[in-house]
Amino acid sequence: MIAPSISRYPVPKLEELPEDIRARMLEVQEKAGFIPNVFLTLAHRPDEFRAFFAYHDALMLKEGGLTKAEREMIVVATSGANDCLYCIVAHGAILRVYAKNPLVADQVAANYRKADIGDRQKAMLEFALKVALRSSEVIDADYEKLAAHGFSDEDIWDIGAIAAFFALSNRMANLISMRPNDEFYLLGRVPKK
Amino acid sequence: MIAPSISRYPVPKLEELPEDIRARMLEVQEKAGFIPNVFLTLAHRPDEFRAFFAYHDALMLKEGGLTKAEREMIVVATSGANDCLYCIVAHGAILRVYAKNPLVADQVAANYRKADIGDRQKAMLEFALKVALRSSEVIDADYEKLAAHGFSDEDIWDIGAIAAFFALSNRMANLISMRPNDEFYLLGRVPKK
Amino acid sequence: MIAPSISRYPVPKLEELPEDIRARMLEVQEKAGFIPNVFLTLAHRPDEFRAFFAYHDALMLKEGGLTKAEREMIVVATSGANDCLYCIVAHGAILRVYAKNPLVADQVAANYRKADIGDRQKAMLEFALKVALRSSEVIDADYEKLAAHGFSDEDIWDIGAIAAFFALSNRMANLISMRPNDEFYLLGRVPKK
Amino acid sequence: MIAPSISRYPVPKLEELPEDIRARMLEVQEKAGFIPNVFLTLAHRPDEFRAFFAYHDALMLKEGGLTKAEREMIVVATSGANDCLYCIVAHGAILRVYAKNPLVADQVAANYRKADIGDRQKAMLEFALKVALRSSEVIDADYEKLAAHGFSDEDIWDIGAIAAFFALSNRMANLISMRPNDEFYLLGRVPKK
Amino acid sequence: MIAPSISRYPVPKLEELPEDIRARMLEVQEKAGFIPNVFLTLAHRPDEFRAFFAYHDALMLKEGGLTKAEREMIVVATSGANDCLYCIVAHGAILRVYAKNPLVADQVAANYRKADIGDRQKAMLEFALKVALRSSEVIDADYEKLAAHGFSDEDIWDIGAIAAFFALSNRMANLISMRPNDEFYLLGRVPKK
Amino acid sequence: MIAPSISRYPVPKLEELPEDIRARMLEVQEKAGFIPNVFLTLAHRPDEFRAFFAYHDALMLKEGGLTKAEREMIVVATSGANDCLYCIVAHGAILRVYAKNPLVADQVAANYRKADIGDRQKAMLEFALKVALRSSEVIDADYEKLAAHGFSDEDIWDIGAIAAFFALSNRMANLISMRPNDEFYLLGRVPKK
Repeated sequence: MIAPSISRYPVPKLEELPEDIRARMLEVQEKAGFIPNVFLTLAHRPDEFRAFFAYHDALMLKEGGLTKAEREMIVVATSGANDCLYCIVAHGAILRVYAKNPLVADQVAANYRKADIGDRQKAMLEFALKVALRSSEVIDADYEKLAAHGFSDEDIWDIGAIAAFFALSNRMANLISMRPNDEFYLLGRVPKK
Repeated sequence: MIAPSISRYPVPKLEELPEDIRARMLEVQEKAGFIPNVFLTLAHRPDEFRAFFAYHDALMLKEGGLTKAEREMIVVATSGANDCLYCIVAHGAILRVYAKNPLVADQVAANYRKADIGDRQKAMLEFALKVALRSSEVIDADYEKLAAHGFSDEDIWDIGAIAAFFALSNRMANLISMRPNDEFYLLGRVPKK
Repeated sequence: MIAPSISRYPVPKLEELPEDIRARMLEVQEKAGFIPNVFLTLAHRPDEFRAFFAYHDALMLKEGGLTKAEREMIVVATSGANDCLYCIVAHGAILRVYAKNPLVADQVAANYRKADIGDRQKAMLEFALKVALRSSEVIDADYEKLAAHGFSDEDIWDIGAIAAFFALSNRMANLISMRPNDEFYLLGRVPKK
Repeated sequence: MIAPSISRYPVPKLEELPEDIRARMLEVQEKAGFIPNVFLTLAHRPDEFRAFFAYHDALMLKEGGLTKAEREMIVVATSGANDCLYCIVAHGAILRVYAKNPLVADQVAANYRKADIGDRQKAMLEFALKVALRSSEVIDADYEKLAAHGFSDEDIWDIGAIAAFFALSNRMANLISMRPNDEFYLLGRVPKK
Repeated sequence: MIAPSISRYPVPKLEELPEDIRARMLEVQEKAGFIPNVFLTLAHRPDEFRAFFAYHDALMLKEGGLTKAEREMIVVATSGANDCLYCIVAHGAILRVYAKNPLVADQVAANYRKADIGDRQKAMLEFALKVALRSSEVIDADYEKLAAHGFSDEDIWDIGAIAAFFALSNRMANLISMRPNDEFYLLGRVPKK
Repeated sequence: MIAPSISRYPVPKLEELPEDIRARMLEVQEKAGFIPNVFLTLAHRPDEFRAFFAYHDALMLKEGGLTKAEREMIVVATSGANDCLYCIVAHGAILRVYAKNPLVADQVAANYRKADIGDRQKAMLEFALKVALRSSEVIDADYEKLAAHGFSDEDIWDIGAIAAFFALSNRMANLISMRPNDEFYLLGRVPKK
């Protein structure tokens, strides 16, 4: 049986890659046990690869008012709205791990209104989906609603910017038919003993 | 009279900025005669600023099968679909300059089907808008249609990736109410003598 | 910790239920190891319960040209389009079991175009989604396209009727905030030894 | 002249039908003077026929807080939104008869906001259309709005369930090109002397 | 019982009206037996009234390749898509009279694909609805499809212009809550002896 | 180089035109310095031409509570929503001239929420876009919101009627591929000395 293609475009071999990109891949492999296909497939274009992950890290690894699980909720909810298989599956796994909750990712991907999350998080996702789907309609009242839930202006930039970055990411994954690693589907579903 | 705000967020002063960011701004000011507000407003977050422009340059300045004017057409058409004032006005100006055509930007922003462009460019924009608006529906037949117009697979990545990057860019501009510099509105409209 | 509510409406106790309904529940519990919440929550209205499951069985258990896994694909794809948490999760589990494939349900729920299924199945799901989302536009050409993939007229009734029945089912689940049993999330993901 | 087809599928002859189905048809013929085509066309699949009408009766004939005319309003309004010719025409006729009003069906099919109905009924139809068109967005506030108009939780189940059942019914009618009997078009329009 | 209002705006009395407008009303009353409310309600603004009916007559009374019934089909189909109660009911009546067919208006208002009309007329209505709903997407191929059905370029202007004029008319009727005369509902439904 | 076509239909020569139509064209040429293509292209159908401009003048030249610049804002905003190249460019120019503001037209065409206009004008454009895009949903609350901004009922008729008239105009321009005169693109952008 042939492994299914992970991209519509050529996937470079590890040994052909620029040193910095290979190093990043080995580092993530070390941590996760496998190299997520977003690394392998985007490496087809090294400059775009570097910018993509620099942007990702600036938004997802920084300090701030949102927890890591909340950031991943934004990714999963907006990727669900954009029907992006890679991001739903891969970031769903990461959300399960960060939230230590095996159910929340499938809930947020399907319909955040029915998810086991708080009202503050529902307001966050309502706004993230507005940025994802009809950003031109964002108005002052949206900012005020989030402020009433305790979000600072910098938090709101975070929410909106994560929705915006995954607007890019979802489109790239759909464009090149990026395939989620099989490992992601099960990750975080079975409690460790 | 007070100048209108160019962002909903604080705009750093040039002298407060990290050296690399200030250098980039001075360089663009040297060339364009003014600093486009996208530089000033995104500098509120230096790490995101660096990733944003690295991504932009990787897509817009690279060699490839698309002319610079064609890349800007993609920006203007998808920004029009996303109702993004900053990108329509600023990239409309750049498109006029690159295309040496004072009409084409307003045409493409309104409706590329009625623009003074060729069938190949219309096919390019039809695909770019599909990536911008319903990327999950991209299928093999879309690739084949573009191939029939002479676009290579790498050209198609370029088209899709530019549409994807400006999906991000449009959402950021709408999120922070980024205001286009007044200079952009007239740029490229009056032939130089 | 209190168990989260499985319905916005009262959920009858097993011992209060009419005999035929209780028998059906015990039968499914025997087979699945637990009682899916769709049984418990719809039992609030016994007559509707009976009609619902009679309809379900008439479509999902009958002989015909579609495999059981294909029928569940239709359920999962259209429930994904309708953002119905209960049906995505519960029928996703059933699909994994019938297809003996731990990945296909998440794929079909997100975007059937990227799923590990054949062209015939993609044509089936394209039609099912048309019935689910814009049934008034169904025309002869749709029938002809399916016939070209080997579907008989009776198969097409099956596809359309399953999409139609889950249009009802998804709306009921969304109306009453039907909660998927926790068991469904993991079912069919881990190969049995 | 040949009578136009009433279904894309074979229509069984009365004498070929199972006894219970034929009995039901003769009973309705007795009352209405003709057999509505929904009976004749769905009889192509006896098990689905039985479930369909059991569901229909459970919702439309039961006691409850909604009048029979109000239930038919829900059918007509949601069938209008789904562009279902059979249900608009057939249930429009039934609505005229129950409401003893020759105008209200055409009004509700076109735009309930302009119909000669009360505010309570407009709120009911607004909710029914939300269930019909975007049920995943139903939230607590919708329930509260209806409660303020005096609807009980059981009434709300009725409203939502009728909208859900006709989501199924409309899709079946569109799927098989179910043709309304000519008799329905005039029924209830001319006051009896 | 008070007669329901026919407009949200003041309705002038016949004797207050400019002579030409009153004359037109009396003429239509002579022919139809009543004054359609579109005349009474738009007379609130005499200059707009004159332009409206001049435009109407230029499109609906002129010679050309479309029959009068076909023109009214365009009105009814596009008014159905715009949910305009006045135009569906009033022009539905006129369509029944011109087509000498008591069924066709309700069919076309609900879904022209299921109406008792020919393929040429279905192509005409498909184009009319494109002009009504997404005119910016009209392309050469649409013209060619209509030409293949025997429509001349002037016929296509007629189709498009009628759809365009009733885009205006539907919006005015919705804006002012124009009420159809009760007489229209029954007109053309009962064959004359 | 051949001048691009200004219409998909024949454009009559000035000397072939009926006297009243030619006179109107010469008058506008006298004032504007050129004949806008809407005159030349619609003259293909003299009766429709006369009705079109009579309607236009009745709405755009009359006295009333809206300034001329505000009326043009309505035209530009709704034409932007309808992707009508001719009206965006031609009425954008007129708006710049009336408002003595070189920026406002591009702002309103892209997204009125980000334009340099007041809250009253934003409320006006929100309503105009509702009439343009989903007029059947206009309800009393819309009227009340406008009244709270000081608009009279007659002002609201003006706003709605302008949106309605340009619903017609946009569709005609899209239908016949009406091309804006090159002169419009620059008009009102460069301050006169």
